[in-house]
Amino acid sequence: MDELGTIESPIVLTNTLSVGTAVESVVAWTIAQAGNDDVRSVNALVGETNDGGLNDIRGLHVRREHVLAAIRDAVDGPVVEGGVGAGAGTQAFGWKGGIGTSSRRLPARYQEHTLGVLVQSNYGGVLTIDGAPVGKELGRYAFREPEVAGLPRRSGPADSAAEAGPEPHAPGPDGSCMIVVATDAPLTARDLKRLAARAVFGLARTGSSYSNGSGDFAIAFSTARTGTPLPTDALSPLFQAALETTEEAVYNSLLRATTVTSNGRTVDAIPVDRLRDILKKYGR
Amino acid sequence: MDELGTIESPIVLTNTLSVGTAVESVVAWTIAQAGNDDVRSVNALVGETNDGGLNDIRGLHVRREHVLAAIRDAVDGPVVEGGVGAGAGTQAFGWKGGIGTSSRRLPARYQEHTLGVLVQSNYGGVLTIDGAPVGKELGRYAFREPEVAGLPRRSGPADSAAEAGPEPHAPGPDGSCMIVVATDAPLTARDLKRLAARAVFGLARTGSSYSNGSGDFAIAFSTARTGTPLPTDALSPLFQAALETTEEAVYNSLLRATTVTSNGRTVDAIPVDRLRDILKKYGR
Amino acid sequence: MDELGTIESPIVLTNTLSVGTAVESVVAWTIAQAGNDDVRSVNALVGETNDGGLNDIRGLHVRREHVLAAIRDAVDGPVVEGGVGAGAGTQAFGWKGGIGTSSRRLPARYQEHTLGVLVQSNYGGVLTIDGAPVGKELGRYAFREPEVAGLPRRSGPADSAAEAGPEPHAPGPDGSCMIVVATDAPLTARDLKRLAARAVFGLARTGSSYSNGSGDFAIAFSTARTGTPLPTDALSPLFQAALETTEEAVYNSLLRATTVTSNGRTVDAIPVDRLRDILKKYGR
Amino acid sequence: MDELGTIESPIVLTNTLSVGTAVESVVAWTIAQAGNDDVRSVNALVGETNDGGLNDIRGLHVRREHVLAAIRDAVDGPVVEGGVGAGAGTQAFGWKGGIGTSSRRLPARYQEHTLGVLVQSNYGGVLTIDGAPVGKELGRYAFREPEVAGLPRRSGPADSAAEAGPEPHAPGPDGSCMIVVATDAPLTARDLKRLAARAVFGLARTGSSYSNGSGDFAIAFSTARTGTPLPTDALSPLFQAALETTEEAVYNSLLRATTVTSNGRTVDAIPVDRLRDILKKYGR
Repeated sequence: MDELGTIESPIVLTNTLSVGTAVESVVAWTIAQAGNDDVRSVNALVGETNDGGLNDIRGLHVRREHVLAAIRDAVDGPVVEGGVGAGAGTQAFGWKGGIGTSSRRLPARYQEHTLGVLVQSNYGGVLTIDGAPVGKELGRYAFREPEVAGLPRRSGPADSAAEAGPEPHAPGPDGSCMIVVATDAPLTARDLKRLAARAVFGLARTGSSYSNGSGDFAIAFSTARTGTPLPTDALSPLFQAALETTEEAVYNSLLRATTVTSNGRTVDAIPVDRLRDILKKYGR
Repeated sequence: MDELGTIESPIVLTNTLSVGTAVESVVAWTIAQAGNDDVRSVNALVGETNDGGLNDIRGLHVRREHVLAAIRDAVDGPVVEGGVGAGAGTQAFGWKGGIGTSSRRLPARYQEHTLGVLVQSNYGGVLTIDGAPVGKELGRYAFREPEVAGLPRRSGPADSAAEAGPEPHAPGPDGSCMIVVATDAPLTARDLKRLAARAVFGLARTGSSYSNGSGDFAIAFSTARTGTPLPTDALSPLFQAALETTEEAVYNSLLRATTVTSNGRTVDAIPVDRLRDILKKYGR
Repeated sequence: MDELGTIESPIVLTNTLSVGTAVESVVAWTIAQAGNDDVRSVNALVGETNDGGLNDIRGLHVRREHVLAAIRDAVDGPVVEGGVGAGAGTQAFGWKGGIGTSSRRLPARYQEHTLGVLVQSNYGGVLTIDGAPVGKELGRYAFREPEVAGLPRRSGPADSAAEAGPEPHAPGPDGSCMIVVATDAPLTARDLKRLAARAVFGLARTGSSYSNGSGDFAIAFSTARTGTPLPTDALSPLFQAALETTEEAVYNSLLRATTVTSNGRTVDAIPVDRLRDILKKYGR
Repeated sequence: MDELGTIESPIVLTNTLSVGTAVESVVAWTIAQAGNDDVRSVNALVGETNDGGLNDIRGLHVRREHVLAAIRDAVDGPVVEGGVGAGAGTQAFGWKGGIGTSSRRLPARYQEHTLGVLVQSNYGGVLTIDGAPVGKELGRYAFREPEVAGLPRRSGPADSAAEAGPEPHAPGPDGSCMIVVATDAPLTARDLKRLAARAVFGLARTGSSYSNGSGDFAIAFSTARTGTPLPTDALSPLFQAALETTEEAVYNSLLRATTVTSNGRTVDAIPVDRLRDILKKYGR
């Protein structure tokens, strides 16, 4: 895709160890479609994050029928969010993460172009919501458990995230966010890549630690099939929309998730009542 | 630098149209240093942002003696911040920006490595400080003046930054942030590049719009001359430090700047008293 | 790999549509190895070219047992070349291509470092061997059949390859070369990436057209587990070795291949006797 | 340019240490043009190679008036080649290099698009011309003088360039080629970048060593101001043209150069009579 600038398949999200199965399934699905009898090349587009905490990821439970069902059952309309699909086992900021989505319609002076984002949230940091220090207030530094590292337990939250910085080998901190950006604005492949970069930037507003093991990745595509691409200097409103919707989609992924017990672990949903209090305390 | 992974000159920041003069001056300075008699190649490292509002940038007023003086007069110790040096004419979020700096010393378990950042802030967006919506509270959407665009004046601030999104050709919105990251941790050139990426991510926490015309750029270097590079999986605390210090350095650049009238324009310093009230209102 | 600079799995080559199966198999193999009981993340390294001419590629005939057998049966020693493994169905310059290999041991003054290359040749152009215009002499412009394009048949070979340039949609021209570069020189991940670039450059010496559909790709790795990486300015001899061995490995892939009839087509081996005459004519 | 995909200035080539002066001059020229009264930002496009052998490069002799004269005196029509302009002091393969150019007009079925290349040749390797081993025949391995390295003199040319591989610190081997590609085909910025990559690949056909210190760089632009960009899958003929013209332009730079004595050194022009014999010997 990076070389040719085109997407040739459905976009499928899964867990790290099931990428191969997902690619195989997408290829099988694509060549079986009507009109594709002569297709001999498919660059399948599969994204992943590692949900090996709640998911028995080594069991390789995703099989071709699951991927084909996901493609077959895709429908227009509201997107189911939270711990569903490739988000069933993911965690973010120490709480249950998952699938989240958000979108914007630009004002009339920008031709009312729309932009939507879907995230698979599975990463660490110290959560902020609309700027409020939610992670600190809830005492949840996802990425460090001092006792795991054999260090003395701290008596309270650190003043600085660097102080409480991610423990390199701890199980919690790392993780990634997979982001899909869709727009109906006619953009060149080149500008879509710049748009995708803004989606990754937007994670910073949620408190992402972008840690060493993170593989945050965004892919952006346009649904416009005709028409002259927008001039480069008309992109800023779309960039702004990508920043905002990525931030918002992550919040939605957390707020729609419910507590999950699986694979011998329990990961709590973010406590919405306490969250309300915190946001009120910080003026939201 | 991208090819060889090495820095061969002092790092100089200036305005967009003076890059040539700065490069020429850095080259002249470098080949004149003792021991460099046989040097026939210099890749000069010059960063820039466009301060063409307060600065009569077309006048090309930066001359070689200024650059040489800047190198000659560089000293250890506290960094002067605000509207100084290459920050004399810059603006950020609609207020006077400039030079800002911030640093971290990692805890003992991370070998007490230090990391410092210096920014030349000159970009737009809707300012947030430690998550508080300062730009909205102060009614300062740097990047759009509805009357300039010939559109009806809005009665109040927009609910969404996308609604009030940057006007492509308006003079205010665009702009860039130049970021220099220094650390004494021994890192490979490859990991320094990954570290620099986190500095750019950190701008999102200040409310950067990363607009189309922005050329946000970070360069990172290590002062360690010996020793085995840190293993890749030890980088997360440094990444966190780069995120935090970039955010903080931008705030410092604003807080240290004073109101400037130049080139027929006045750009106000951010009003610190009102800022205090806003931060208090939002629980900081 | 691009982010972390490390290789976590065996390297497997296959055809375009079997990448998913190969990834799945490599993942299954890796997590099953002794000592990997806690491994929950694998970035599998699979390369591909499209052999959909001789191979019934849509049949998806590569299954997990084939991939596991390939890994299990890998042995030290001479590499089998020609139409074997992932090279069974590939074509190059209009003849049967396949797997080829070549290596160099650097002189003592360069520490006798070794470098080896393995290619999966499957691409077009006008073949040159050691500079001799073999493709022109043998009348083999792999990528264009004038009558297909509805143009008058030319009476002889064109003077210029651009004249006989690749027909965008013709089946022949496109294709790729997958290249694996191994060295025992201790190199950083960053310099290995630069080394891999030279391998791709080396294809030009064989007459590669690097056509639009080509996805030429090289991965380089070092077998050195300890020791200080070579300084960047010691890399030139390794770069030269990568250029030479890539060129030579492509020739070996052609010379070791035999004529294959499969999937309703026959692709000839390059005629070695005529090749000898051509090389003699051109002074080799 | 990489971010915005546009060229905003004349393209100027110079020596490594005069880049700053050239940038400064291009900026001054650009803002002084009619209609540019409000221009406050210019990304000047300046290429360079290091001619510090024949050129007293440390003298910084290029001044603004020279750059302005070069822009002012640029004319349509045949390009002067050899040791002129930024090629006055360059060397290639141990002989005098310089400026070279070459072009192609595609056949009617490819809309007769044209593509031209201009090179500033200043690099090492073992020269091949149209595949003939000219460098070996003329005993010119630009990049290594065994006695310099304190090693026993070899009795004859090495069988392998790797054997005679570049001596890391020798003055001769390194160097770069700056390449400018122009086409009237309407291409996107993204495809122009892919086209430029092919120009760099084309250097391999001349025997380039792409040594560690090389900074081979190609920039491609389109003169088409209107019209729909070519579809990506129509690019192969232009790619082929870029490969061929880059190779040919390098030969022209050598063949048009004359022997130069300067800065205490003499660099010979390639001996055309002997070259004719060699080409004949090898069947050209």
